[in-house]
Amino acid sequence: MYRAPVAEIAFTLKHVAGMGAALETGALGDLSEDLADAILEEAGRFASEEVAPLREIGDRQGAVLENAAVCMPDGWKDLYRRWREGGWNALSGPVEYGGQGLPAMLSVAVLEMWNSGSMAFGIGPTLTMGAVEALHAHASEELKATYLPKLVSGEWMGTMNLTEPQAGSDVGALRTRAERAGDGTYRLFGQKIFITYGEHDFSGNIVHLVLARLPDAPAGTKGISLFLVPKFLPNPDGSPGVRNDVFCASIEHKMGIHASPTCTMIYGDGFAGDREPGAVGWLVGEENRGLACMFTMMNNARLAVGIQGVAVAEAAYQKAFAYARERRQGRAPGYGGEGMAPIVYHPDVQRSLLTMKALTWIARAISYSCAHAIDMAKAGGGQAGFWQERANLLTPVAKAFSTDVGVEVASLGVQVHGGMGYIEETGAATLLRDARIAPIYEGTNGIQAIDLATRKLPQSDGGHVRAFIAELREDAERLRTSNSEGAAQSVDRIEAAVDDLEAATEALLVMLQEGRTEEALAGATPYLRLFALGLGGALLARAAVADGDAERTALCRFYAENLIGETASLRQAVIEGGMSLLAAGEALHG
Amino acid sequence: MYRAPVAEIAFTLKHVAGMGAALETGALGDLSEDLADAILEEAGRFASEEVAPLREIGDRQGAVLENAAVCMPDGWKDLYRRWREGGWNALSGPVEYGGQGLPAMLSVAVLEMWNSGSMAFGIGPTLTMGAVEALHAHASEELKATYLPKLVSGEWMGTMNLTEPQAGSDVGALRTRAERAGDGTYRLFGQKIFITYGEHDFSGNIVHLVLARLPDAPAGTKGISLFLVPKFLPNPDGSPGVRNDVFCASIEHKMGIHASPTCTMIYGDGFAGDREPGAVGWLVGEENRGLACMFTMMNNARLAVGIQGVAVAEAAYQKAFAYARERRQGRAPGYGGEGMAPIVYHPDVQRSLLTMKALTWIARAISYSCAHAIDMAKAGGGQAGFWQERANLLTPVAKAFSTDVGVEVASLGVQVHGGMGYIEETGAATLLRDARIAPIYEGTNGIQAIDLATRKLPQSDGGHVRAFIAELREDAERLRTSNSEGAAQSVDRIEAAVDDLEAATEALLVMLQEGRTEEALAGATPYLRLFALGLGGALLARAAVADGDAERTALCRFYAENLIGETASLRQAVIEGGMSLLAAGEALHG
Repeated sequence: MYRAPVAEIAFTLKHVAGMGAALETGALGDLSEDLADAILEEAGRFASEEVAPLREIGDRQGAVLENAAVCMPDGWKDLYRRWREGGWNALSGPVEYGGQGLPAMLSVAVLEMWNSGSMAFGIGPTLTMGAVEALHAHASEELKATYLPKLVSGEWMGTMNLTEPQAGSDVGALRTRAERAGDGTYRLFGQKIFITYGEHDFSGNIVHLVLARLPDAPAGTKGISLFLVPKFLPNPDGSPGVRNDVFCASIEHKMGIHASPTCTMIYGDGFAGDREPGAVGWLVGEENRGLACMFTMMNNARLAVGIQGVAVAEAAYQKAFAYARERRQGRAPGYGGEGMAPIVYHPDVQRSLLTMKALTWIARAISYSCAHAIDMAKAGGGQAGFWQERANLLTPVAKAFSTDVGVEVASLGVQVHGGMGYIEETGAATLLRDARIAPIYEGTNGIQAIDLATRKLPQSDGGHVRAFIAELREDAERLRTSNSEGAAQSVDRIEAAVDDLEAATEALLVMLQEGRTEEALAGATPYLRLFALGLGGALLARAAVADGDAERTALCRFYAENLIGETASLRQAVIEGGMSLLAAGEALHG
Repeated sequence: MYRAPVAEIAFTLKHVAGMGAALETGALGDLSEDLADAILEEAGRFASEEVAPLREIGDRQGAVLENAAVCMPDGWKDLYRRWREGGWNALSGPVEYGGQGLPAMLSVAVLEMWNSGSMAFGIGPTLTMGAVEALHAHASEELKATYLPKLVSGEWMGTMNLTEPQAGSDVGALRTRAERAGDGTYRLFGQKIFITYGEHDFSGNIVHLVLARLPDAPAGTKGISLFLVPKFLPNPDGSPGVRNDVFCASIEHKMGIHASPTCTMIYGDGFAGDREPGAVGWLVGEENRGLACMFTMMNNARLAVGIQGVAVAEAAYQKAFAYARERRQGRAPGYGGEGMAPIVYHPDVQRSLLTMKALTWIARAISYSCAHAIDMAKAGGGQAGFWQERANLLTPVAKAFSTDVGVEVASLGVQVHGGMGYIEETGAATLLRDARIAPIYEGTNGIQAIDLATRKLPQSDGGHVRAFIAELREDAERLRTSNSEGAAQSVDRIEAAVDDLEAATEALLVMLQEGRTEEALAGATPYLRLFALGLGGALLARAAVADGDAERTALCRFYAENLIGETASLRQAVIEGGMSLLAAGEALHG
């Protein structure tokens, strides 16, 4: 059973991701280290003891649709109630609406724990928090006063409605239509698909944020507006009133996260009785500027999905590790005990476990570093622009690399279990099935890679990414001068990876400058992985230097000598592989 | 929907795996090219039109256990009947028992097609064929006369009973007991788990091959005997008679291959009524030599499971490719048509598809090459020993690499589908869930890697693997002199990969010689992948030279410039990574 790795999380936040320094300089307001520790400790307890035990029943029962209502698995409604009564939903919410206003670093750390407990549970509140951010940044004071207190407390939950059958990665193709009602409100008509937690029985109301098009809107992404559409129209006293004309028509039968209802939502089909059809909505932000508003929500949702990758990898590692210490098969060179050796003594099993551990570790450190950049940007001051660029740079990496790692590690976890891993009751397969969605939703990992390579690298004319790479070199250099055992070899390997990252970065910047866009697009996916692996080496070096812990130093060495070397071939693929890809790709057009 | 790639399969058999030359020299008996082509064509039709359409219903309904009987999904029993009436089960069976005695190369090629149609279907007959081989090689004439005609025709099916709860990879730990009945037969008592097709309604009888221990047997693997235990004891006329004391107690609820019943089999629990308890069995081969007999069956089963990896990868590629040509999103630089571009025009999607295609291609070519070696060894003559070593060398590579590729390609297939890939009705997830068992069963991929690195490399004091590597160099060199466009760069990359393979091979041989076993075990998994990637490059070079087909040459170049480079880091991990792995691994012992 999952136990939240509170000590490792706290160490990574403070000594790798930058929370230590940020606490000292006051960039995190009046948050104290003691308070941070207490929050992590208590979240760890709740995630381990209350969320994780409901993961498997969630998978088996799933969310069930009956008469346009979604029934959640046994115990889940009560779990959500206890969770929000514990104040967890309000952790990062704005103080003026009842939130605790705590930094992103803390909220991603506890989010990791909820998702290790159960990804299907963790994803629901993530959307509420995204809705809070979007409304706080863009909605009118009246909307904020009505909705934010309840969304911050978790009494109501939020959703994000972008996708339509013909509009997935290409959100500009959406057709849902919004008409001005003449009284300042709007009426929405259309169908949205893949709406996470679009309907459920957790909360008294559900607040949908919906992208739609006004009748006179320009085509494409410049004609999209954002609307707030509640399931129940609030009464003057704020309580849920009349049922709005938005209904869940079906929920998807998915590979995993069965307890997370993925809904097809129908707006304005007249299901709400004798009123005129049309879902009543309120504009958020300005007309035709909806995409910008939604991006507020999406960027943080991307990091939150990255955290899901970290979370499921951590849960898979713990499960496989526990099994490998119990399960005995054969003789192992290093085992001196009686009878068959626990399989954790077999070097090949150790390779699987250490690979899982190292990848999980670096995905976590990258994601927390991204949260740190968000916090520093929010803190303002002369460095705010720099930190915003840093957050922009790291967000696609945190999302895509961590979710790839989630799948890779969960798959290795199944393998470590042998035949038992393929049996559903073991629970290892659940983690792999759950993990598989994260590289897809919130912008596929291909979209993230393209975002990194073509939009984030050119920030400050390439100056930001170059400065970032220089920082990685400093981390490696500090490990060299730390005199820790075996460090020289590790440092050489980490530096070689940073060299690969630098060369591939410069090559991409040249391609973009010279208008060789297709070649840059062709190299995007290997570039993102190269970026993450190189960065991961630097972060492990930083960790090894921080306290010289023998286990972490050994993990750094293992990573440097066994895994980071992949960067050389990724560099090759980015710099020289594009033309052969495009040539071979032509045969696919058919 | 899956269409068997008959032309590509025939090309790979003839021009890459060696069937062309073998046909010419008569090593394949009186098989003609025309007959081979006709068989492939007809198998392709059956797999595409009859097997594949039942894949999804198999997944949804699964095999269901009721009162110790297993009911197969709708249409499956009839599918099996038509399949065996088509003569497909008898393809490779011995001629003297009604088989066609066709070479392994043909039987793996058609096996690929059945498994692309449905892995859950393909695995059943695979076990029957394994039973045929084991009985043909080791059973008494009387047993052969009774069982082989029906097993060859497919009227009866076979199973393989090794695993027990405490004995998985370590088969020597098994406890099922066999007692001499005094009349030449035996009585078996015990429990076997994970028995594929242990019970079903396809055939009138089920013939279990069971590993068990005699009361006076030595401990470990030297005290294991092989028994034949039929579900129904044959009457004197050969028809199924009295029900034997072997029953299916439960079937597993698995991640995939739902229609393949995975059974817990109970031997000798007295369920069969008023007779004395004990499942009636007959010895196959000699007492205490059962493992050697079982290995006959296991080796070919390993190649057959490797073929499952190829098969599911092919099905996943076709599905993703078809989707990518239909689905439209966004604009793509290379698309000149109206509106949104089919996503196959996006370079990043092309990268996914080409990676899937290249990996599937090399896994197929490796597996067919392994089958070729088996055929050449069977053909006898002065080279039989050489070809047996070749088959030994390639079997673990074909099994492990191809099944890893199955998972990797099926996962990419889900990704290419975006959100639709995660919806079960799409069928992309089915392929990934199915694929995930293949790296586990028939010896986990870790076991295969250890087999390759510690048992197969030392064949002929390393002479065999060295000669093999020299052959790979010749393939690369031939491409260099072929003057095909862009070949020079590809050849350089392929040769670099062969250099990596050679260096890692020599390093492993030294480790083994010096008794550094743990280090060799630590490097086994990266070594196997390195071996396959290097070999794959040489085989693609061979294909490019064979007919200069532009599409295949472009694929070779894509592979050489984008994928094969991984060998450099794998070489590093094998040669230098072991010590850091073992050091970090100590922390895991706990």
